Amino acid sequence: MEASYAKLVERLGEVQDIASSAGVLAWDQRTKMPVAGAAARADQLSTLTRLAFERFTADEIGSLLEEFRPYEDSLDRDSLEASLIRVTRRDYEKAVRVPLELRGEMARAGALAEPVWREARKTSSFELFLPYLEEAIELKKRYIECFQPVDEPYDALLDDYEPGMKTAEVRAVFAELRDGLVPLVAAIAERTDAVDDSALTGDFPLERQEEVEAAILHAFGFADEEWRVDETAHPFASKGGPRDVRLTTHHQANNLTSLFACMHEFGHGLYEYQVDRDLYRTPLGRGASLGVHESQSRMWENMIGRSLPFWERFFPTVRDAFPGRLGGLDAEGFYRAVNRVQPSLIRIHADEVTYNLHIILRFELEQALVDGSLAPADAREAWDAKIEEYLGIDVPDVADGVLQDMHWSGGAIGYFPTYALGNVISGQLWERIRRELPDLDERTRAGELGDLREWLRENVHRHGRKYMPAELLERTVGGGLDPQPLLAYLRAKFGQIYELPA
Amino acid sequence: MEASYAKLVERLGEVQDIASSAGVLAWDQRTKMPVAGAAARADQLSTLTRLAFERFTADEIGSLLEEFRPYEDSLDRDSLEASLIRVTRRDYEKAVRVPLELRGEMARAGALAEPVWREARKTSSFELFLPYLEEAIELKKRYIECFQPVDEPYDALLDDYEPGMKTAEVRAVFAELRDGLVPLVAAIAERTDAVDDSALTGDFPLERQEEVEAAILHAFGFADEEWRVDETAHPFASKGGPRDVRLTTHHQANNLTSLFACMHEFGHGLYEYQVDRDLYRTPLGRGASLGVHESQSRMWENMIGRSLPFWERFFPTVRDAFPGRLGGLDAEGFYRAVNRVQPSLIRIHADEVTYNLHIILRFELEQALVDGSLAPADAREAWDAKIEEYLGIDVPDVADGVLQDMHWSGGAIGYFPTYALGNVISGQLWERIRRELPDLDERTRAGELGDLREWLRENVHRHGRKYMPAELLERTVGGGLDPQPLLAYLRAKFGQIYELPA
Repeated sequence: MEASYAKLVERLGEVQDIASSAGVLAWDQRTKMPVAGAAARADQLSTLTRLAFERFTADEIGSLLEEFRPYEDSLDRDSLEASLIRVTRRDYEKAVRVPLELRGEMARAGALAEPVWREARKTSSFELFLPYLEEAIELKKRYIECFQPVDEPYDALLDDYEPGMKTAEVRAVFAELRDGLVPLVAAIAERTDAVDDSALTGDFPLERQEEVEAAILHAFGFADEEWRVDETAHPFASKGGPRDVRLTTHHQANNLTSLFACMHEFGHGLYEYQVDRDLYRTPLGRGASLGVHESQSRMWENMIGRSLPFWERFFPTVRDAFPGRLGGLDAEGFYRAVNRVQPSLIRIHADEVTYNLHIILRFELEQALVDGSLAPADAREAWDAKIEEYLGIDVPDVADGVLQDMHWSGGAIGYFPTYALGNVISGQLWERIRRELPDLDERTRAGELGDLREWLRENVHRHGRKYMPAELLERTVGGGLDPQPLLAYLRAKFGQIYELPA
Repeated sequence: MEASYAKLVERLGEVQDIASSAGVLAWDQRTKMPVAGAAARADQLSTLTRLAFERFTADEIGSLLEEFRPYEDSLDRDSLEASLIRVTRRDYEKAVRVPLELRGEMARAGALAEPVWREARKTSSFELFLPYLEEAIELKKRYIECFQPVDEPYDALLDDYEPGMKTAEVRAVFAELRDGLVPLVAAIAERTDAVDDSALTGDFPLERQEEVEAAILHAFGFADEEWRVDETAHPFASKGGPRDVRLTTHHQANNLTSLFACMHEFGHGLYEYQVDRDLYRTPLGRGASLGVHESQSRMWENMIGRSLPFWERFFPTVRDAFPGRLGGLDAEGFYRAVNRVQPSLIRIHADEVTYNLHIILRFELEQALVDGSLAPADAREAWDAKIEEYLGIDVPDVADGVLQDMHWSGGAIGYFPTYALGNVISGQLWERIRRELPDLDERTRAGELGDLREWLRENVHRHGRKYMPAELLERTVGGGLDPQPLLAYLRAKFGQIYELPA
């Protein structure tokens, strides 16, 4: 059995090497590759992706997993061996359900749709994109068929990004979240003049921005021999290996948004960095799900990066980097400015309070598109109506409406909810962290974030994909998904900033 | 037959995708990767290299190649199809001769030896490196056994870098070359004060160096959407795809050597860039050999980059970039300075005249090591004696002697001669180019190098690996290897610079 297990580990290691090689190529494509290199890169990525898939779904892997059933039962469920067999079997059983041909069609459709989406967004033409959206939905319906029976069609999509999560549970959590957010947004709207963020727009030289970011990232835990940060169009984090973490950012000379984008990507990077090294070259060696990942990025971006203690430490760094640029702001004024709440059209620019409403809207539309109750041709009107309903604003341009995000062009349907699930999970973790690290504010004020990193490592990061998200949450906070801690955090923070009635 | 050929092309395309992916990872490793990423990168490169090899040596490829024999004979020998079958068969027959186990041992030995070589060089300890050199030679002897019968053992090694080339031919060419160079070096030594290059050492800010290089590279043909240049420790050129060419350089603030390193790597990059796009994703889609490659890099570095017409055009760019730094030099003075001849210990810093003697020395030692007439333990003394014989200088430190190059640590024995073969070939091509492009000096003086690029594309680059180096040379200059054109070029150029008697 030991020899068979070693063989499985070796096979999986190869698959991981191929996948992580593809990851480095994808990073390069978005940061360094000359633009004319795109065609060759598409060939390389397509070949590596297919090879990894073929080797992972080889009959040999299936036979080994069958052979291991009694061995697995004899092991401690939390052991590396049992976890590896369990998670690999789940991945394998999902992977072999989808014909290679359908996978090919999906990859091709995504590759064709992305440039059309870019053009459609640039020219504000929903009609141009519509046939590609219809195709993406049709392919998703065929994909869902591979996973029948499911409680409801959307479950099959959600599971790819948030393993084990059911649509019904997300629906219930989001309903509770929405019911809590809508009155908070309304209360803040009454006091909209209480926060002024005009000082955040102006002239912020890029080299100075980079210096400030470097200071903050190093305080967070970034180390030059293991991390790097590069410029890209749409920021992301990537891992070339367990000690090779790559953040990306997009600087703009007239605002400081990339500061927060860096903190966000740091949260993703730290999660990957702190996965146990034992799990490297196995399917367990990365974050548990997109939702859990997002809980980490949002925590570093918002709960740390938009907190008063943090700016009590770092405001002087920013102020000195941009002499005369931040008006008469002090640390508290800067803290208030970076927390201004304002319903707006674009998700990625949304504040901490309204952000989740953007996600809930997409979650509702995606379900309707997939179950057939909403025709793709009507998606634009449905979008605009929900923006009016949840945020009280008009959508004057479809480029800032249903065309704003690239996800659907790539067939990534079922992905959006993980953003708000991440916020919900970050609320639950944060409540627990505040209790277990009572001097966190004081530490943050001193620029010392090692205790927080260590808590996250011990309770979340080190496990990689050993546990399903629900089990990980149960182990960490002793319960299931619950939006109340996030709502309580938001009410307290923004109640104080906007001086809302209790 | 068409279906079988399409299958072969598809299989070879996959292998090329894997190999070019590994190439991008290797580029990243040497330019961008955080240092701590080395272990994961070694796993990735080892897996990709093995996969590419396994897929290339699969029985299916062998059967297809057998099946194609009559088909190949029915085709025009110069056609893409016939060339692809011919070159693939040669590669395949070589690849399957070497047991996977021996390949693994060689890769492992190289990986282990390289850090030891670094340490040995740093501490000037030949004894530290000696066991690794002995191991490398032993492995090479086993490797040579796989290719028996060969005329002489060294042939088997040379063929990996210069396909079809025989040791006997190189020996004859190098003897003639040495006989021509030794008196030239001696004549120049009599006139050593005729050239002063002291202005080339000083304070040259890196940003200014980068601006000058960008101006020169763009005049050469570098285009931002298809090329890039990055910093590294040991410069090289790399290709991510047919329209993704990556040069690297190593800037030093106290001299201008990286200017010439950039031109050198440009020559390699242009060769790869101008290979016919039809050959992409086939074994034909790169340069014919290391020797032919080096002929291109040396031509752009020396025959263009160290020519008077070139500096008549570009000296003002350099002068203006470093105000007051170049003393009272004018274009001709700068041209003379960058062509100073001075016997020295380090190959990579050697001038155009003495460089080849460094190579001939290594070629002679390698043959003796491989045929057993020189024990590795005696390599140091043998080296020092030859440096004295050919260049008339002592080797005070083994770090600047037998330990100076990394090649042997990686098992790259048989590689060195290609450097001087490249110079020889560049001499032959240059003679032909001068005849066919009579206004080349004038064009160079105007910074217009399109005709030269086009000549090289038409006569050399576009063919990729379709022809063996000897056949390519025959087609281009109508003869075999001949050191006389290079000697004539060197005598004319340095005779003028040093005012030597005719």
